[in-house]
Amino acid sequence: MNGAEVLLRTLLANRVDLCLMNPGTSEMQFVSALDRVPAMRGILCLHEGVCAGAADGYARMTGRPATVLLHLGPGLANGLSNFHNARKARSPIVNIVGEHATAHLRYDAPLTADVAAFARPVSGWVQTLANAAEMGETASACVQAAYGPPGQVSTLIVPADFSWSPAGGPGPVVEPATRGMPASSRIEAAAAALRQGDAALLLGGSALLEPGLTEAARIRAATGAQVFTNRYAGRVVRGAAWSFARRVAYFPEAAEEMLAGLRHIVLVETEPPISFFGYPGRRSTVAPEDCLFTQLAAMDEDGPGALRALADKLHAPAWQPATAPPPELPPSGPLTPESLGRVLAALLPEGAIVSDEMVSCGEAVNAALATAARHDLLPLSGGSIGQGLPVAVGAAMACPERKVVAIEADGSGLYTPQALWTMAREKLDVTVVILANRRYRILEVEMLRTGATQIGPRADEMIDIARPAIDWTLLGRSLGVDSVRAATADAFASEFAAAVRTRGPKLIEAVL
Amino acid sequence: MNGAEVLLRTLLANRVDLCLMNPGTSEMQFVSALDRVPAMRGILCLHEGVCAGAADGYARMTGRPATVLLHLGPGLANGLSNFHNARKARSPIVNIVGEHATAHLRYDAPLTADVAAFARPVSGWVQTLANAAEMGETASACVQAAYGPPGQVSTLIVPADFSWSPAGGPGPVVEPATRGMPASSRIEAAAAALRQGDAALLLGGSALLEPGLTEAARIRAATGAQVFTNRYAGRVVRGAAWSFARRVAYFPEAAEEMLAGLRHIVLVETEPPISFFGYPGRRSTVAPEDCLFTQLAAMDEDGPGALRALADKLHAPAWQPATAPPPELPPSGPLTPESLGRVLAALLPEGAIVSDEMVSCGEAVNAALATAARHDLLPLSGGSIGQGLPVAVGAAMACPERKVVAIEADGSGLYTPQALWTMAREKLDVTVVILANRRYRILEVEMLRTGATQIGPRADEMIDIARPAIDWTLLGRSLGVDSVRAATADAFASEFAAAVRTRGPKLIEAVL
Repeated sequence: MNGAEVLLRTLLANRVDLCLMNPGTSEMQFVSALDRVPAMRGILCLHEGVCAGAADGYARMTGRPATVLLHLGPGLANGLSNFHNARKARSPIVNIVGEHATAHLRYDAPLTADVAAFARPVSGWVQTLANAAEMGETASACVQAAYGPPGQVSTLIVPADFSWSPAGGPGPVVEPATRGMPASSRIEAAAAALRQGDAALLLGGSALLEPGLTEAARIRAATGAQVFTNRYAGRVVRGAAWSFARRVAYFPEAAEEMLAGLRHIVLVETEPPISFFGYPGRRSTVAPEDCLFTQLAAMDEDGPGALRALADKLHAPAWQPATAPPPELPPSGPLTPESLGRVLAALLPEGAIVSDEMVSCGEAVNAALATAARHDLLPLSGGSIGQGLPVAVGAAMACPERKVVAIEADGSGLYTPQALWTMAREKLDVTVVILANRRYRILEVEMLRTGATQIGPRADEMIDIARPAIDWTLLGRSLGVDSVRAATADAFASEFAAAVRTRGPKLIEAVL
Repeated sequence: MNGAEVLLRTLLANRVDLCLMNPGTSEMQFVSALDRVPAMRGILCLHEGVCAGAADGYARMTGRPATVLLHLGPGLANGLSNFHNARKARSPIVNIVGEHATAHLRYDAPLTADVAAFARPVSGWVQTLANAAEMGETASACVQAAYGPPGQVSTLIVPADFSWSPAGGPGPVVEPATRGMPASSRIEAAAAALRQGDAALLLGGSALLEPGLTEAARIRAATGAQVFTNRYAGRVVRGAAWSFARRVAYFPEAAEEMLAGLRHIVLVETEPPISFFGYPGRRSTVAPEDCLFTQLAAMDEDGPGALRALADKLHAPAWQPATAPPPELPPSGPLTPESLGRVLAALLPEGAIVSDEMVSCGEAVNAALATAARHDLLPLSGGSIGQGLPVAVGAAMACPERKVVAIEADGSGLYTPQALWTMAREKLDVTVVILANRRYRILEVEMLRTGATQIGPRADEMIDIARPAIDWTLLGRSLGVDSVRAATADAFASEFAAAVRTRGPKLIEAVL
């Protein structure tokens, strides 16, 4: 059995059975081995950013790693910005990067680069395979590292000769480490803080799914504590029944207003809230300056378990999410972020997965989505645009029975449009909504905030993407995705309703 | 004057007057300053890979750096693979990367990453600005470093607060270091080697333009030495009159055959020739094993000057490139790499610039181009696909009076299609030829070469990009470029002839 086959079999033994790939010559033995290891599902992506982002989306929805197969340093480089997002989302990913054959490395061939140096800033674990015989054991260690907790990108660099050489047998099955409960003293400290009033919970990480949110609702009922969510977490359950948990706002002024008057914040798998950017004359933290923080559960601890213990300690009542009819469609009229958000809220199917890369439209659309049926929101965890479409690919592979809706700004959608092709090829059940304002709108706001007093015509040109206008219906169709345009609230409602009724990929260019 | 303005004025004072950008919040002061420093030309690209590749193309054609403006670590990450190509092409580039404001960095905000760690593998010089007052001086040092010799990517990381703070005045005008002549003993050694017969020159770097090639032709006439060119150099002059200088072949068997029987190779701004990849049971070097090498000029030395001294030492005769009519168009028939190459050779305008990302079609098309009118070929220097269209953007900006022809494989074209938008926006005189074989064809060959004995159906799927077929005419039009399809040699000849007659961007999907 050669090294490539040993690697695939080791991954499979560890339940890693999806390989998102953009391979080259040095990875051809892995590609060849797919026919001998049919349980490994190989998915081709046309750009490495799609592989990395799709693995992130898959991990956010399953809690398990997919594997990514990339070609040498430059192939890895193309995936780095979405690995950055995965790192911030604490997603487990097994990242396999091919390297030149060991005897070839010394010649500094054109594609030679420092692969490990590229990998380190985004990876919690990086290793270059030392010899073929260690393939199985090292691959198992790579999977183990990916799980964390918290999850992380785990990068194994494999010289080509170790994949074509005999390499013994598969490595061991590893047990993912489990999240531990925090010490009881921390539960007591959190209870004491909440009993004082003017307090809030701030949730992140694994605390943002139903179990954690349910306990937070109990605690809220028992103490009156407000509940906030880290807006940059990898995944959060949202919808009308869960709207008591509010996302901390993007701009620091709005965030400060939300958190005003709080004297205590209990942190669950998150750090104290901060501003996304620093601005002249403004602090980076957004909680009141005299606010105290209590860490109930650290990033690697069991946040939902800790919340349950805390709720029990507080003798909090049971809590059930209320059921409510979806909100009504907005009246006829122009398509705006607000009316688009109301259409989505009215029509979003229960259990949908929303990949959120809305940028400047995000506050308006997300406010509306808070009234929708229960759904999972997958936010832009690391701020690096180009995540939305790839994450939607991965979420659709993880949950083929659920509708995925990718809500995508037209600027950010242009970073990894290649994801559309994989959606078409794999017939993924993704509705892509392009928010086409034809501008890097967020930068217009940000420019003034960084102290520039006005936007001159030459500066304006650098945030204008209307010249030429990008035709998303042609772009989607060029990559095999059925694509339509909607320019009014009615037209958008009609197209979106049709899209959620039908399985398979569909793109709607929503002209704002 | 704030730091952003000081930086732009320092660059301008040093003749760096083109800024290829994909900015974000932390770079907004630079964008704002464009209206106060109008001599700096700002060009917006929709992906950082386009910025990096365009700066590379500009540098290859002018020998001077453009500047690139990118947003934080993830923005830089998206540019890395084309910076890798630029590094291998030894192109001077001034790479400005914004960083969070210094007071914000400690909070590990979503976009926080180790920017310098991302930059180091591709940069010859990396510095994070220490304070606003040093902006001018550090920017001058950054320009100086970019020039080398040889040229390199020079990365200056600028925290946002240093761009919005007062920063004194512009930095000094720096003198690019010049390439020195090698010691006369090396010229004598090269002359002695060539006089023994069975010898060749292998040229790279700055020796591949007219002056160096002219001296090589003199030396060839005087000694019978063969002349070879490094196929991964950044730029090489080609065409019928220059066809005595032959590119070393891609596959090692063909390269070995070209170099068979040589007892001595004189190296000019290049290393001994090697195989692109290592393969089982095959050495990485391609010259005969007992071949001796003499380094006439190192990478940082004056190759053309050294060749001239060598030619004079050998009392070589004068040499003029012959003029010849262009070859004839091929007969009617199917469109193949061979017939497509013959059309290009027949119709390529004198002085055209060819951006070469042909991958599996490269050997056939380049063989035909050797018979064409004089042109500059810009090869895939670092092997990282996604370079071809961005490099064409930069070449067109560098040489607006010359026709640029980007010959692009359909697989590799999908890595940075966003370059088409900048071509449309800036009305660049680029004809894009997409070689649409709808397959990662090169991998089919490479898979068997790495020891896989056959390509099974599941492996085949990973190198097939025909399902769904990418419609390049829709893709081009979606990004504003007039696009047509040609499926026969006649149709391609007719479309290509029309494209070279007309100024402005045009895409031809050549269905092979």
